Amino acid sequence: MRQLIKNVHVLTIDDQMTEFPEGYVLIEEDTIQEIGAMDAKLPSADRVIDGKNGILIPGMINAHTHVGMIPFRSLGDDVPDRLRRFLFPLEQVMTKELAQASAEYAVAEMLLSGVTSFCDMYYFEDAIAESVEKMGARAILGETIIDMPTCDFATPEEALKWCETFIEKWQGHPLITPAIAPHATNTNTPEVLAQIVAIAQHYGSPITMHVAEMTYEMEEFAQRYQQTPIAFLNELGYFEQQFIIAHGIFTQASDFDLLQSKAQAVKVAHCIGANTKSAKGVAPVKDMLKNHWHVGLGTDGPSSGNTLDLFTQMRMFANFHKTHEHDRGLFPANEIVTLATKGGAQVLGLDHLVGSIEVGKKADLTLIETESVNMFPIFDAYSALVYSANASNVSDVWVNGCQLVKEKQLVAQQVSDLRQQLVENMTEFVKEAKRRSEEI
Amino acid sequence: MRQLIKNVHVLTIDDQMTEFPEGYVLIEEDTIQEIGAMDAKLPSADRVIDGKNGILIPGMINAHTHVGMIPFRSLGDDVPDRLRRFLFPLEQVMTKELAQASAEYAVAEMLLSGVTSFCDMYYFEDAIAESVEKMGARAILGETIIDMPTCDFATPEEALKWCETFIEKWQGHPLITPAIAPHATNTNTPEVLAQIVAIAQHYGSPITMHVAEMTYEMEEFAQRYQQTPIAFLNELGYFEQQFIIAHGIFTQASDFDLLQSKAQAVKVAHCIGANTKSAKGVAPVKDMLKNHWHVGLGTDGPSSGNTLDLFTQMRMFANFHKTHEHDRGLFPANEIVTLATKGGAQVLGLDHLVGSIEVGKKADLTLIETESVNMFPIFDAYSALVYSANASNVSDVWVNGCQLVKEKQLVAQQVSDLRQQLVENMTEFVKEAKRRSEEI
Ligand SMILES: [Zn+2]
Ligand SMILES: [Zn+2]
Repeated sequence: MRQLIKNVHVLTIDDQMTEFPEGYVLIEEDTIQEIGAMDAKLPSADRVIDGKNGILIPGMINAHTHVGMIPFRSLGDDVPDRLRRFLFPLEQVMTKELAQASAEYAVAEMLLSGVTSFCDMYYFEDAIAESVEKMGARAILGETIIDMPTCDFATPEEALKWCETFIEKWQGHPLITPAIAPHATNTNTPEVLAQIVAIAQHYGSPITMHVAEMTYEMEEFAQRYQQTPIAFLNELGYFEQQFIIAHGIFTQASDFDLLQSKAQAVKVAHCIGANTKSAKGVAPVKDMLKNHWHVGLGTDGPSSGNTLDLFTQMRMFANFHKTHEHDRGLFPANEIVTLATKGGAQVLGLDHLVGSIEVGKKADLTLIETESVNMFPIFDAYSALVYSANASNVSDVWVNGCQLVKEKQLVAQQVSDLRQQLVENMTEFVKEAKRRSEEI
Repeated sequence: MRQLIKNVHVLTIDDQMTEFPEGYVLIEEDTIQEIGAMDAKLPSADRVIDGKNGILIPGMINAHTHVGMIPFRSLGDDVPDRLRRFLFPLEQVMTKELAQASAEYAVAEMLLSGVTSFCDMYYFEDAIAESVEKMGARAILGETIIDMPTCDFATPEEALKWCETFIEKWQGHPLITPAIAPHATNTNTPEVLAQIVAIAQHYGSPITMHVAEMTYEMEEFAQRYQQTPIAFLNELGYFEQQFIIAHGIFTQASDFDLLQSKAQAVKVAHCIGANTKSAKGVAPVKDMLKNHWHVGLGTDGPSSGNTLDLFTQMRMFANFHKTHEHDRGLFPANEIVTLATKGGAQVLGLDHLVGSIEVGKKADLTLIETESVNMFPIFDAYSALVYSANASNVSDVWVNGCQLVKEKQLVAQQVSDLRQQLVENMTEFVKEAKRRSEEI
């Protein structure tokens, strides 16, 4: 099928940052076939979508999230040590059915906000993969490995063994890439962390992990190993793998020096909203980019970042990094839109497929309407996206050529049904959550 | 007329922070008549609105903006010294008609995002007052006084003289309070700043001004007067007036000491989004509140803060202040919602009328729907407002008992018409704006 999206301001995010202020994009099956200006002769198509002067960008890429955690949203947001007071204990009552319902809801939320690809870390990742497949999104899905009994495995060894089956089952899927997700540098033994590298290497699978996120993590590594967590992981061979660091808030100057020759292999999912809501700090993204590391934007889970859209993250990114570096000219809006699209694709290792609007790439596209009150005037489309737009301005979304959002609604599902399914599986969770809230 | 809003989670923001998780509010003409829980016998009404489990809060209050500046949005956002390169020069082509059309559009945007009251500083403020009256919002409207020729007056003296007519015309209006708005501490002569106090005192009118916002302002005052701008204004008698400081980013410890006995009279419109987008910094709000100053939230103009909704500001507030003070527990969500409502009312001197949902107060109300994908689950309604909601979740808005927004649409206008009116008046502005953009 040939789909023609016309009357759109196309921000291609190709290497020249080519724009077509009045342009069109032709999709042939799952692929971008043609991009041009409206004053050219338009190609024929089976279906024509009038973009009504909306802004068409590459589908946004959420480089770090936990799709199983919708049930946690708005719970204990302002409470210190929430990880140990809410998250770990409540994950004991997490079920496969709940994780799966949560994943469908989370993917719906991402699609409706223009996110077409994401990288996930959670439990019951096989069930989550089924949800993601059903919803039609593109994803890297990593089963969490952690040195404690979890809702799906009694030991990290069991979880690791299962990971191989999981990887074998999903490898080669057109949209889903199975992965391994050690929870953090300090919540796994060095032995397990080494085994993970071996499995990742064997299967060529990505690894994703929370790294340099916590002050106590940094202190522990300094005391125990006289090393940064990044240096420790480097010795274990992580940077010879496809390795996605989540956070990296406390990345040190020594880490940049150490990884100088491997800079292109360093990939960071930067979660500015979650990092600053929890008062942890601002990761040194300016230095990461100067050192040729790849950086994408992540929301973190709904319990940490609350919403799963990248508009919130783009706006936070602008304000935090400009203020942090005392430079209003730093990170102009076009660079921030690039991080949310192409940057994320590079971090996920999907940049040969998506992250820009170029002929031959997969048709993962997000259309942002400009009819709402907040979207006028537009002297600069990038500025409008970073400083004015919010998730509700996303009108149409395609993944792999398939339209999943149309006129601000999911094409194949109803949000109310997805919510109902989640509610039906949340009874035990809500009971335990309320009990824990009252204890505070 | 009696209007009953039922099936809502009422956050009253009264002194006890009373909540009715399943509640109702009865409006009688312009006044809140009754507040209760749904399990009581509901009062009779001429009109019943089913809130469908939405969250009902006091109308939000934007404590600092420039409603005439919609035409500037997305223009030169990341450019250093934008004030002198874009704002001042383009204000030379600002016309009364354009300011008026802009004001209508800006008020529409605020109403649609749940803002019912605001404090404005701009030119042609009489025309703006007409727009605000037409739109039905509550506002303090201050004519800008600045030591340069402007689009409406050749000298500050002329502008000041006109201010008296303006104040006389609008004083006593049920929704509009005329005010005087000296642009900044360093863009007016001390003589004019003193005259402003005299006029404000004579009429009992509010003053609003950009104060302690710029590093060069602080340096200028240190060199010229060996004083902070706040200390300087104190000597001129500003804190004996109803005086609304915009920004106060560089408020000093000495300012707190100096104003200790007048703390209740110090009112700050804190514009975290604009202040951090321009890399200026984070105002010491924790200290302001500790010193019993009043603080509300402001968006600043559409050229600085881009959007005019307070959801963006609440989210920015949480993340910036928690990170700035290294304390995730600081400013829990309920305190932030309080700043956006009651705090703003105190700053505007309207807290005897609005800012909380209490019997006898004016019915300025904002209903936020919880059916959208980002609004589930809700363990804490304040958290949902601060961390999950955006402007698009506002469904219904009342000002002074009059419903101005219904099911996410303006009741009496169409956004497309307001935009068209703006476009028709923007031709010269756009031409000049594009010329200046190309010069960069
Ligand atoms: Zn995470
Ligand atoms: Zn201002």
